[in-house]
Amino acid sequence: MNDKTAKVDKLPTIRRLPMYLRILRDLVNKQSEFVSSSHLADVLNIEPILVRKDLVLTGIVGTPRIGYHVTDLIRSIEDFLGWSKPLATFLVGAGHLGTAILGYQDMKNFGHKIVAAFDKDPGKIGTSIHGIMVHDVSKLPELQKKLDVRLAILTVPPENAQDVADFLVASGIEGIWNFSSVTLDVPKGITTHKEDLISGLAVLSVKMARRI
Amino acid sequence: MNDKTAKVDKLPTIRRLPMYLRILRDLVNKQSEFVSSSHLADVLNIEPILVRKDLVLTGIVGTPRIGYHVTDLIRSIEDFLGWSKPLATFLVGAGHLGTAILGYQDMKNFGHKIVAAFDKDPGKIGTSIHGIMVHDVSKLPELQKKLDVRLAILTVPPENAQDVADFLVASGIEGIWNFSSVTLDVPKGITTHKEDLISGLAVLSVKMARRI
Repeated sequence: MNDKTAKVDKLPTIRRLPMYLRILRDLVNKQSEFVSSSHLADVLNIEPILVRKDLVLTGIVGTPRIGYHVTDLIRSIEDFLGWSKPLATFLVGAGHLGTAILGYQDMKNFGHKIVAAFDKDPGKIGTSIHGIMVHDVSKLPELQKKLDVRLAILTVPPENAQDVADFLVASGIEGIWNFSSVTLDVPKGITTHKEDLISGLAVLSVKMARRI
Repeated sequence: MNDKTAKVDKLPTIRRLPMYLRILRDLVNKQSEFVSSSHLADVLNIEPILVRKDLVLTGIVGTPRIGYHVTDLIRSIEDFLGWSKPLATFLVGAGHLGTAILGYQDMKNFGHKIVAAFDKDPGKIGTSIHGIMVHDVSKLPELQKKLDVRLAILTVPPENAQDVADFLVASGIEGIWNFSSVTLDVPKGITTHKEDLISGLAVLSVKMARRI
């Protein structure tokens, strides 16, 4: 197996890891010390064997009849994802989608924080959306240096996406979470992930056809 | 392998199928008659063997040295997804996320159409967003019967999501594309797909850590 295959090989597992974290945090709140793969499987409506395969990828192995130690499992998943320390991100493009994401409680639930938003619209600059300040996009390089932010959420219109991505890379951003529907061309060493909504519609369509 | 495993087993393939369709439509515009798995693999930055495995799921097999007939391949993927006829959908909840999705050009590119939006805010009812009329949500059952729409995009706040989902099911909706961050409880025979943005951040984080 070479690099390219490896890239996509574990995607479904990686996509499920935050869902385990959500359940595990609930268990911490309920002061549960251990959790079984069958409990996790039930909540997610998947098979226990799949849960065990997912979790072993993070380097943890459960104990038969006991299961996983909840806080150990959280640590194992967070380490694997690189989420042991919360991520700080910028959001670029404070339109409707950007505004929706600024209010997206779930990122905060995982400890991650959008520390600043950027736009070029003078009507938005200087305002605060869901408690996050919108800055002139020209201020981004300065704030990147000050706050050492490596990750940006890109929610600009498709026609501006590549130009803004180039600007982000030149400003020191290393990872772009791309909501723009454009496939970005970035230098080696820069990571992008394109959020492709239509993929969700494909999954729903197939599930509907099979009535699952 | 039982039902539950089967549910998630082909997810990565299904999520990629619209991406193939996008490339294939471009090829139709360029009047290309055939396409190789290695071309598709190059554009998507995955391995040709993975492309062949993905496409065989839709029931098509390429011809060595020739590849796939472009329009046959489009038909095969569309049939598999149930997209041979365009989908008509409702959108419920015309807030920022709803508004962003109403303007989401990509659904239209696949022939799918949001035929009506719904909200309970009198300030939005009767207005048109990206050319789509916003109706009082109480009008939904009537319009469902008239237009025979089976699919709804749910973009209401999390605290209203379950109630609205119950109302959608009672109104004849069979599939819910759930953007609400709440896991919905629906009767057997009703399909939901939860769009979990945090999964995308997990993928990006792992890619960044591995510099891929």
